[in-house]
Amino acid sequence: MSDSVATDRIFNFSAGPAVLPLAVLQEVQRDLLALPGAGASVLEISHRSKQFGEILEQAQRRIGELLNVPENYKIMFLQGGSRLQFSMVPMNLLRDQSGPAEYLVTGSWGKKALEQAHLEGTAKTTWDGKSTNYNRLPESSEIEIDPQAAYVYYTSNETIQGVQFATEPEVGDIPLVCDASSDFMSRPLPMDRYGLLYACAQKNAGPAGVTVVIIRDDLLERSQKNLPGYLNYREHVDNNSMYNTPPTFGVYVMGLVAKWLQEEVGGLQAMHERNQAKAAQLYAAIEASGGFYTGHAEPSARSLMNVTFRLPSDELTEAFVAAAAAENLGSLKGHRSVGGIRASIYNAMPEAGVETLVRFMQDFCAKHG
Amino acid sequence: MSDSVATDRIFNFSAGPAVLPLAVLQEVQRDLLALPGAGASVLEISHRSKQFGEILEQAQRRIGELLNVPENYKIMFLQGGSRLQFSMVPMNLLRDQSGPAEYLVTGSWGKKALEQAHLEGTAKTTWDGKSTNYNRLPESSEIEIDPQAAYVYYTSNETIQGVQFATEPEVGDIPLVCDASSDFMSRPLPMDRYGLLYACAQKNAGPAGVTVVIIRDDLLERSQKNLPGYLNYREHVDNNSMYNTPPTFGVYVMGLVAKWLQEEVGGLQAMHERNQAKAAQLYAAIEASGGFYTGHAEPSARSLMNVTFRLPSDELTEAFVAAAAAENLGSLKGHRSVGGIRASIYNAMPEAGVETLVRFMQDFCAKHG
Repeated sequence: MSDSVATDRIFNFSAGPAVLPLAVLQEVQRDLLALPGAGASVLEISHRSKQFGEILEQAQRRIGELLNVPENYKIMFLQGGSRLQFSMVPMNLLRDQSGPAEYLVTGSWGKKALEQAHLEGTAKTTWDGKSTNYNRLPESSEIEIDPQAAYVYYTSNETIQGVQFATEPEVGDIPLVCDASSDFMSRPLPMDRYGLLYACAQKNAGPAGVTVVIIRDDLLERSQKNLPGYLNYREHVDNNSMYNTPPTFGVYVMGLVAKWLQEEVGGLQAMHERNQAKAAQLYAAIEASGGFYTGHAEPSARSLMNVTFRLPSDELTEAFVAAAAAENLGSLKGHRSVGGIRASIYNAMPEAGVETLVRFMQDFCAKHG
Repeated sequence: MSDSVATDRIFNFSAGPAVLPLAVLQEVQRDLLALPGAGASVLEISHRSKQFGEILEQAQRRIGELLNVPENYKIMFLQGGSRLQFSMVPMNLLRDQSGPAEYLVTGSWGKKALEQAHLEGTAKTTWDGKSTNYNRLPESSEIEIDPQAAYVYYTSNETIQGVQFATEPEVGDIPLVCDASSDFMSRPLPMDRYGLLYACAQKNAGPAGVTVVIIRDDLLERSQKNLPGYLNYREHVDNNSMYNTPPTFGVYVMGLVAKWLQEEVGGLQAMHERNQAKAAQLYAAIEASGGFYTGHAEPSARSLMNVTFRLPSDELTEAFVAAAAAENLGSLKGHRSVGGIRASIYNAMPEAGVETLVRFMQDFCAKHG
């Protein structure tokens, strides 16, 4: 059964929800009617059951191991996606603080996060890449932070523009808050440099509908009692993600993805090297095209997750997307706000997918360039 | 494959997440690696893809057809469960209104909803069943509503106590708001009597992680611009549940459940009759036990979804749960706040499950009564 269906699968370059490891999908499929030992589907078991307790504990443990999360951090599984975090971060970490929140706006998602922060307190645009259409990242010398700042917020990878921080911005002792939605678990991180890091799962880590939040526990003291219950990080930590019914299936799949990273890939350093190799092939193809393809991001800001580039005309872009789809290379159209092409090559995109796309790009350029 | 796995399935009386129709699980399993025509799993396709657009549209259409939802109502798919609705309802419908919100508290969930409403505005305890441990519902004569009330809120079925409204409370022209999480799509409803009705899916309608909200469109005018984006009903309606990435898998499964209700069950009246017949068997077994089993709810308030009863002692209760589990009757332990036994017999619980439980109850009573 799985063989015949697997051949129906295309190379899926969707920016999210996005490709998942085939081995994970196969395990989900195998156990869909009855989780071993449970007598019921993972979709049907109580979140208070022993089986789900183990699923949650293992997902937390594996994510903690992969990212070397220190003991004084808590890992939560929430709902509402990044959009809800755009509000929960300032509601929990900014209210009644003496200093402002500082936002590094390096693309569309950072901009939307800042808009929500303005509704909750004093939030500053510390840096904004708008003037160059978000094709680069700030230099250290461009970032000036209030020493009283409540936190510094940034987006490690901007999915739409395809720009990614290679390392964390320098913020001293100010808590660093990161939206890592689109590069979560794609590489090792020095977690002790973060105050809070969150990621909606549907890029590198699982299906839509579950968001991981990792918080340094001293920051929980900022969450005030009069916050709406679901929006209070402390409630979720005190109840170990069981303040209400968690998105059980999403947690389950995320745990399987983490298991795949540990047992099949060999950890985040190995994953990072694979991701670097995949991205390098695509950027090399862009550069070798003699100007037929032009990358959006400056070389120093290039994303390993979302490779964004343009063709000489809208007609050629449309022809490219259509011809690629005919060769089972799917979802390559760029986001409507940027245009052009976007190849999202998250963890689970196999090297064969990238190689096929590179050959396609070369052929297309040879024909139309 | 499905046959052998299906025999591993027990009768699952979990209160939620809960049993789903086997035909739905089989379709999810069949298409898990590649949704027909998509070349990718439903877990992997973009929420902006044509395929997911159809999934969302069909889920909305089928739910609308099943419940006869009038044209001037909108159907949204959100995240965050009932807990987030406890806050979103007053944030959207109570702020800057001249009258209070009126809450009918008939069990644990209504009580928690009221606690959250107090944080957002003036909310009144219009009725509270605490004095009889939430075993009954209010009479019409016990409900006195401020003619200026912003809305009247109630919980159609209280999962923990097992009490259910057979019909809507009379509230005249005041918008009626209903938490229908645990009896959604279990019976036909006069939707035009509701201002807003919501349900988290993990009882009768799908997996955990998706919440349906059905709102009469004039009420959207109350949602203020300065609400946090994700918490604003108007944002979700304006974007047709695409304000951010919706919980795509949950919407997909919910659509399949709605299809099962339409095509296999024959609609909500047929479903309601099945549910009445199942519940009648269990309540008859309680009454025929000569006092060995005692129901929690007064007969007029009995839930068709969650049948709650006690045994003569805690020891017998534990023995009952253990012996039932040994006969593949799972998750019968009552909620810790009420104790005793709770048999949740949602839509997807087959009649055979109820019949097996009834026989088990008779045998257990004969042995220990």
